Amino acid sequence: MQETHYSLSPIGILHSPLKEREEAPNQGREGAPNAWLEVNAQVSAGLEGIAVGDEIIVITWLHKAGRDTLKTHPRNDETAPLAGVFATRSPDRPNPLGLHRVKVLSITGERLQVGPIEAIDGTPVVDIKPVLLQSADA
Amino acid sequence: MQETHYSLSPIGILHSPLKEREEAPNQGREGAPNAWLEVNAQVSAGLEGIAVGDEIIVITWLHKAGRDTLKTHPRNDETAPLAGVFATRSPDRPNPLGLHRVKVLSITGERLQVGPIEAIDGTPVVDIKPVLLQSADA
Repeated sequence: MQETHYSLSPIGILHSPLKEREEAPNQGREGAPNAWLEVNAQVSAGLEGIAVGDEIIVITWLHKAGRDTLKTHPRNDETAPLAGVFATRSPDRPNPLGLHRVKVLSITGERLQVGPIEAIDGTPVVDIKPVLLQSADA
Repeated sequence: MQETHYSLSPIGILHSPLKEREEAPNQGREGAPNAWLEVNAQVSAGLEGIAVGDEIIVITWLHKAGRDTLKTHPRNDETAPLAGVFATRSPDRPNPLGLHRVKVLSITGERLQVGPIEAIDGTPVVDIKPVLLQSADA
């Protein structure tokens, strides 16, 4: 295949009490804190219609991840057999996109308080989408 | 904020009977066909552990989308009030990432048959993730 690349620009950034990757739980529901998602002023018109109480999907760029990993021990368990990264949620993968289903807890201008979320402080956000179905979404 | 960009490389491509954006339903569950996801040989080791019957999340790069749209009529309904793109699943958005929860129907080498999926023929795939919970997953 030809060498193609797409350019992703952050639409915002996460402010979280989690400062290091080592502190972060594997998944939001495993004791992660809430965080503030600060949306860039240039794209904040895109937030219209998002309300407190909504469930949304935040897509992040896991900027501390390695991109050369194709096999990993799921959940960092060295005793587990190696699995392909596409069969796991490892942050280390060719395109380190993170998917986080969170609740909107409060909204202040261009900042959404969301959680729980396992991404660390300073993680770039590249998209936000609504959850479509409670039971079988994305 | 500073002008930052991240570079996304396709990990594969979709082969679908849907050839034009106008033919595609809004969501996979709205009558979309199955498609073949052909994974690049360089990253196909990352598929290990994915099995027929699995539910996976395919993340696409919606290459026909416009990136300058911040408000849209949901579901192309001109009578609906304008909403921010982050409150909709519109393909037109600053970073045109598509999220598709699909079932793996068959596997032939580096090709996964998946569906139903509303993305059109030739859509680049940038990530694949497992569904973690049937009821509440990102």
